[in-house]
Amino acid sequence: MNTIGRLFRLTTFGESHGTAIGGILDGCPAGLQVDCEQVQLELRRRSEGESLSYNGQPLQLGTPRREEDEVEWLSGILDGETIGSPIAFMVRNRDARSADYSPLQHTLRAGHADYTWLQKYGLRDWRSGGRASARETAARVVAGAIAKQWLGLRQIHIQACTATIGSYPITSPLSETTFKALQQHIEAQSSLGGTVRCTIDNLPPGVGEPLFDKLSARLAAAVMSIPSTSAFAIGDGFEASKMCRQEYVDNWAASAQPEAHSTRFPPRLSTTTNHCGGIQGGLSNGMPITFTVGFHPICSARQGMTGFDLSTHNTEVIDLPSARFDLCQVPRAVVIVEAMAALTVADLMMEALAHTSLNPHAVFHQSL
Amino acid sequence: MNTIGRLFRLTTFGESHGTAIGGILDGCPAGLQVDCEQVQLELRRRSEGESLSYNGQPLQLGTPRREEDEVEWLSGILDGETIGSPIAFMVRNRDARSADYSPLQHTLRAGHADYTWLQKYGLRDWRSGGRASARETAARVVAGAIAKQWLGLRQIHIQACTATIGSYPITSPLSETTFKALQQHIEAQSSLGGTVRCTIDNLPPGVGEPLFDKLSARLAAAVMSIPSTSAFAIGDGFEASKMCRQEYVDNWAASAQPEAHSTRFPPRLSTTTNHCGGIQGGLSNGMPITFTVGFHPICSARQGMTGFDLSTHNTEVIDLPSARFDLCQVPRAVVIVEAMAALTVADLMMEALAHTSLNPHAVFHQSL
Amino acid sequence: MNTIGRLFRLTTFGESHGTAIGGILDGCPAGLQVDCEQVQLELRRRSEGESLSYNGQPLQLGTPRREEDEVEWLSGILDGETIGSPIAFMVRNRDARSADYSPLQHTLRAGHADYTWLQKYGLRDWRSGGRASARETAARVVAGAIAKQWLGLRQIHIQACTATIGSYPITSPLSETTFKALQQHIEAQSSLGGTVRCTIDNLPPGVGEPLFDKLSARLAAAVMSIPSTSAFAIGDGFEASKMCRQEYVDNWAASAQPEAHSTRFPPRLSTTTNHCGGIQGGLSNGMPITFTVGFHPICSARQGMTGFDLSTHNTEVIDLPSARFDLCQVPRAVVIVEAMAALTVADLMMEALAHTSLNPHAVFHQSL
Amino acid sequence: MNTIGRLFRLTTFGESHGTAIGGILDGCPAGLQVDCEQVQLELRRRSEGESLSYNGQPLQLGTPRREEDEVEWLSGILDGETIGSPIAFMVRNRDARSADYSPLQHTLRAGHADYTWLQKYGLRDWRSGGRASARETAARVVAGAIAKQWLGLRQIHIQACTATIGSYPITSPLSETTFKALQQHIEAQSSLGGTVRCTIDNLPPGVGEPLFDKLSARLAAAVMSIPSTSAFAIGDGFEASKMCRQEYVDNWAASAQPEAHSTRFPPRLSTTTNHCGGIQGGLSNGMPITFTVGFHPICSARQGMTGFDLSTHNTEVIDLPSARFDLCQVPRAVVIVEAMAALTVADLMMEALAHTSLNPHAVFHQSL
Repeated sequence: MNTIGRLFRLTTFGESHGTAIGGILDGCPAGLQVDCEQVQLELRRRSEGESLSYNGQPLQLGTPRREEDEVEWLSGILDGETIGSPIAFMVRNRDARSADYSPLQHTLRAGHADYTWLQKYGLRDWRSGGRASARETAARVVAGAIAKQWLGLRQIHIQACTATIGSYPITSPLSETTFKALQQHIEAQSSLGGTVRCTIDNLPPGVGEPLFDKLSARLAAAVMSIPSTSAFAIGDGFEASKMCRQEYVDNWAASAQPEAHSTRFPPRLSTTTNHCGGIQGGLSNGMPITFTVGFHPICSARQGMTGFDLSTHNTEVIDLPSARFDLCQVPRAVVIVEAMAALTVADLMMEALAHTSLNPHAVFHQSL
Repeated sequence: MNTIGRLFRLTTFGESHGTAIGGILDGCPAGLQVDCEQVQLELRRRSEGESLSYNGQPLQLGTPRREEDEVEWLSGILDGETIGSPIAFMVRNRDARSADYSPLQHTLRAGHADYTWLQKYGLRDWRSGGRASARETAARVVAGAIAKQWLGLRQIHIQACTATIGSYPITSPLSETTFKALQQHIEAQSSLGGTVRCTIDNLPPGVGEPLFDKLSARLAAAVMSIPSTSAFAIGDGFEASKMCRQEYVDNWAASAQPEAHSTRFPPRLSTTTNHCGGIQGGLSNGMPITFTVGFHPICSARQGMTGFDLSTHNTEVIDLPSARFDLCQVPRAVVIVEAMAALTVADLMMEALAHTSLNPHAVFHQSL
Repeated sequence: MNTIGRLFRLTTFGESHGTAIGGILDGCPAGLQVDCEQVQLELRRRSEGESLSYNGQPLQLGTPRREEDEVEWLSGILDGETIGSPIAFMVRNRDARSADYSPLQHTLRAGHADYTWLQKYGLRDWRSGGRASARETAARVVAGAIAKQWLGLRQIHIQACTATIGSYPITSPLSETTFKALQQHIEAQSSLGGTVRCTIDNLPPGVGEPLFDKLSARLAAAVMSIPSTSAFAIGDGFEASKMCRQEYVDNWAASAQPEAHSTRFPPRLSTTTNHCGGIQGGLSNGMPITFTVGFHPICSARQGMTGFDLSTHNTEVIDLPSARFDLCQVPRAVVIVEAMAALTVADLMMEALAHTSLNPHAVFHQSL
Repeated sequence: MNTIGRLFRLTTFGESHGTAIGGILDGCPAGLQVDCEQVQLELRRRSEGESLSYNGQPLQLGTPRREEDEVEWLSGILDGETIGSPIAFMVRNRDARSADYSPLQHTLRAGHADYTWLQKYGLRDWRSGGRASARETAARVVAGAIAKQWLGLRQIHIQACTATIGSYPITSPLSETTFKALQQHIEAQSSLGGTVRCTIDNLPPGVGEPLFDKLSARLAAAVMSIPSTSAFAIGDGFEASKMCRQEYVDNWAASAQPEAHSTRFPPRLSTTTNHCGGIQGGLSNGMPITFTVGFHPICSARQGMTGFDLSTHNTEVIDLPSARFDLCQVPRAVVIVEAMAALTVADLMMEALAHTSLNPHAVFHQSL
């Protein structure tokens, strides 16, 4: 099942070392002017990662594999405008050096999907993980960039950033302590996990479905489908589980739009705090949506990885001296998190439009 | 969208103070002997909550609303056996005292779904939250109980428990410190959040889909659709984000079944640790699946709740002297978390069966 | 898979001789005033069948089984109005006399689903076909009645009628020839097939999706899911396959609304003929949608049916002297065809609303 | 919605005169050896159409546009074998001469999708119909060819042929009368409709879902999504509607496999006739599946077509002297019908596998 979304749907394809990765974005409304350069910039954000530096010195956490990912548009856009038919695109894999991975042909790496794929499918693409590689997220970023442009027309903006790496809080610029600590990790070639924090601004109230498709549930599924994620929190997340009611509850602020109400329909309200992360009963409440994603450290390394050898049936050390890995994937995941949030929100907005556009009492449609 | 699952699908209905809540479980295989008494026991677990006590003294954290929830089976079962057609069931709402909630008719409670429903639909069921009430989870528990029975035939078992309430770790029996602290909260009528930890044992490798329907993503969506959840973690969760690779990676143990392999298919492996919670690349790896769910404190109280008054346009205090609320919903949520996990796993197992049953190299089907 | 529709979704349940049949209609917009008496009238149309008579004398083609089907509303409606949550309903089976069918317990009837169910599920509900009985269509009629009411608010009307029974054209009133011929069939207890013709008036242009979800394809699937259907035709159907282009093509009439156009958006057009049945490229074109459904004769009879005896392994004659069957199901199918058309159109309209509501160049939303 | 299928899913993309058409086939089991040359042969069958001739003289009914359609495989196949990840492919549009269609830029052709697209989307791709062109069916043929190969491993074979063109029955070789009559139509450049008959052999009993996803309903939807279809019939189709029960019912033949039965599970049966087209209660019964598809004449012609002119607001004659059209699309549609049947059957077989693989009483899985 390589499809996400019900009305604004992305289906992706491609293995890390195959011909190309890409996707079909189906359900994007007609008449959207697509800024293709902006899409390329998003791909570059994915390729280079969020820039982290101290005193002008950048941290180099990402893989040296630097593909100049270039989108080829195959359908759905005519004269720069979407025409209602599916938008197909692909990004060729240019910098794949499969030979670097030949030791993996008979080895199941610890911490990777090699074993589970082999169990499930009876075979696997051993060339750097095939479909299990995070290379596939480039397709998500392309589609997410289009979703963002559609949302941007309604002033809905999505912005994520690296919140922590290992146990270090990430600020811009970095503190000296953090910079030095992370440099040590880079020198030790010891990969680290971290967290991404994301905010969605200006989402109108009413996005999400009340039961199984709560906005929180759909965001959770979308970001937990990103490789190497391990946790998801909406608003205060696990911290909220330690609170009592009085600490947690978000009280209403005085209404700013008293004139807008009717006997049936209330004025637009806001809350004085936002512990709930902008979601109540699974629906957006008009406040910023805030969530956090946890990533575990990636399990790859040039030296010291172990794997199960299918010939000898022993666990052995694998050296991949020329392979290229991220030491910390988190700065590169920032734009991927944004993309998944954008796809989710666009899809749920369309669902809300479907059900409320003809309802004279619901103002969802008018508020856009 | 009140449906969850693609092949093992639950659609639910019902408002808290309507005629009944219930659902249709579609896609349950024919020939399953349904233990209806066991289903009733699961409903009782939901009604009473996990029993927490110290020195024989029980904590009373749940609502005094005590419905004797009784399942009426409407279709799909003949002579105690499923027949392949949809299983419809309902539980009547007997103990609904809507009058207790009449102050809510013109008030939007802080921390609740009142405002977001009204914004989305232009109206709402003010009688105790209607569909937004956790009352709807009774339908999930009924369907989850059937899923568990189907999984149980394959020795797949799901077990959850309360891990924390507020900042207190929950043990069985409770420590004296925890018991006393929680008793104080009960006396102060100050509701608390908490966490539930859940384990799925004996799931064969290969359950989950590699991309958007990773087992972790689907579990996240399923449990984050439970009311008042705020966070989800697989395996070590956010703790994993603080680790470096060497601390996190789960190495292979020596293989226990060397004779079972072929040139194409590997022996069954296990790992020496389980930081990843039994999921690699989105697929189960044969180790126990472990995850944690965070719940924020419920925002209801007999006294001291505030709300936005639709007549006066002021925020006012709401007293509901006869209404009944949980002081902590977490012990009652234990069986709901299990139900959502069971529905998710059953659905993804069917998807795996569909794609691997005729694949001679995949052993998924034979391992059940 | 007992669900139809993506946004306006019906899931049904129930066996012919079980407790009840019913369903959950999910996705119906909030704020619809439901006329429950009208729903009952539709059920009566299904129960009694379209009235066919000559000179005041009615034909009696339907089963004498006369259940006073009464809808019990379980959720989703408050004070007569939909509230956005799923509408659950059921109709109890009151007049089921399972004992009449006991000869079927060990027999697989020719022309029925007994054998195919047993092959698929390893068991079956032998009581009058269980889920395979047309009794399940009562749930479709209830949901279809609600869909019609929602469509009716937009002046979209759906009307079907019996077009032929056997090889006889059906008029109102019947011709003497047809009446006498059909009376003979009734006396001979020899069941007959027939056709239903259906028209959807005032559907705006643009309903349907261009590729796999063409309006014609979705209508075909919806009506071919009705028991005992054998063919579907849109517009001129198979007659169109015999035509040449000049006979078939529907030319544009002079435009009636020249003032409505813009440089980008055309005036509303109509065609001088309607061979295509109101659908071009899978989308409605604003003309009446016309389609025809073929039904084969039902294979049941009190006398002379044959079946495969599971004990003797012989084909044997089955006598069911007290069982009750339709001699021709077609007049009763009229309202079922309407219901399936209504559910399909409502669903596709919501899909169109989702994708066009924010498109300033598309006028679909404004035209409703 | 450019996706068909639930478990064996095809999503397609591409406009007639865009860069490429193609698709993603998701859910194809791993381990299938793909015969890519066979796929090319199927594309050639689509390009050239079924060969119809009399006395060695071929009829030339198709468009002279002769693209050497060549599949580029983008993912999902490694060393000639499917690996469980999505199979993406594309076929470049090489022979698109958009300039030939420039008169259409401001004209809405009668009988085409120009008007309905414009109404729905507020814009359209005027270059030969864009997505509405039958060019998109090349992607269906590629995916259908893979589905056929998967089915072929289970000895399930699908074969279609042209049954009629206009009112002429098509035989191989053609009769002199038919040949001469069709030659006259070719000379008059007057396009004709026709019918395709299709048979699916060796499908095991139990394929299809009993209610909304009946095999007949899903086949109807699949083939009615092919451009220019107007009718669908299963088995005897509309002829069945004229029959009485005794003429229609398919009686059981003596069982061929008496030893295979158990108390619970019956022997494999067959019927002496096949009026029902191999489907009972929506499920395959083990007999050949037979169905017929009606196509209306295509509405294009080099001379004499009319259209609504968006500038003048008049209906005017359009001459497209260099454009290329089929005079009868039916021989080229044969392989498209087969492809849609194959995709449908493969999808429903997977659904059956999902629900019966662990049911010891159901033999569906073992029969493959």
